[in-house]
Amino acid sequence: MGKSTQPRRADAERNIAAILATAARLLGADPGVSVAEIAKEAGVGRVTLYGHFPSRESLVDAVLRDAVDHAELALSGLDLEGVPPAQAMERLISSSWEILDRHSRLFVAADRALPAERIRERHGKPLARVEQLIARGMDEGAFRTDLPLSWLVSTFFGLLHSAAGEIEAGRLPRAQAADVLTRTLRSVLAA
Amino acid sequence: MGKSTQPRRADAERNIAAILATAARLLGADPGVSVAEIAKEAGVGRVTLYGHFPSRESLVDAVLRDAVDHAELALSGLDLEGVPPAQAMERLISSSWEILDRHSRLFVAADRALPAERIRERHGKPLARVEQLIARGMDEGAFRTDLPLSWLVSTFFGLLHSAAGEIEAGRLPRAQAADVLTRTLRSVLAA
Repeated sequence: MGKSTQPRRADAERNIAAILATAARLLGADPGVSVAEIAKEAGVGRVTLYGHFPSRESLVDAVLRDAVDHAELALSGLDLEGVPPAQAMERLISSSWEILDRHSRLFVAADRALPAERIRERHGKPLARVEQLIARGMDEGAFRTDLPLSWLVSTFFGLLHSAAGEIEAGRLPRAQAADVLTRTLRSVLAA
Repeated sequence: MGKSTQPRRADAERNIAAILATAARLLGADPGVSVAEIAKEAGVGRVTLYGHFPSRESLVDAVLRDAVDHAELALSGLDLEGVPPAQAMERLISSSWEILDRHSRLFVAADRALPAERIRERHGKPLARVEQLIARGMDEGAFRTDLPLSWLVSTFFGLLHSAAGEIEAGRLPRAQAADVLTRTLRSVLAA
């Protein structure tokens, strides 16, 4: 904890921040970008990068966590309580989709580098919000109760990520995605 | 093509068959099983295995292709033409689920080793059958026409694979899966 470690720690934090910001930007442009290119563009050596992120997987994972933290911040500002569940759900779908759409290439990178279950774990907080809203809709008679709550939450998550994949694969025009998602989830959730 | 290459080729084919059968069995028990364990259990050297399948990814991909070929054989025996679209769809869901459920650990292994888009490509033939049935249902007024056909096909595929993931994660009891899938897809497809 002497004087000599303070600047080193500050350097490390600056490097990590530069690596994560650069990785988010480059992965967002090309999900297949290499770790070497990310290091170069971030202005750090490969050894430094690997010192903080020992594998491509751990780097993509850290970028994903950051992106979900930012998404969480934006979603936490939504007013979901003051409106009926079906209307709140349309708000939540459209805001969630807007955020995911901005990160859709990062999602493709995450899908290639990380197991599906890990990606889902990283979305714990946004999914808790989805779960809470669906539970309220079930209680108030707006949403169906013949399917398990956890399944409906997974369907919400799965369909949003399917839409990102469909756009990336060229099977769904980007401009149609929000409407297609809203219609599909409305049918799945309706009482 | 002399006498000396014939037995060698027969040996190679025997080895490939042994590797694929063993890999399918071991991946089905433990999606994380190593290539070294598969080689050992198949009675071939690691060098031989890597000669045929240069990466874990290429081995999992080959096992997935085999599994889908077998699924295709089973599904091709279904009578989907002689019954109304909604009923044919329930038949197709329940048969597809039965097959996927038997291979659910292999699906988990594929999800970890291969990009989602590759897994989807490998399912080209079974998905063509789903597409044909949904198209017929749209024509006959049994299924909705306000969503793109390709999106409904992807939803079918995505929900079946979600269900396999949910079971593996312990969030969906296996015994409920077929019913949950049928109800969900009925709501998604209904006109």
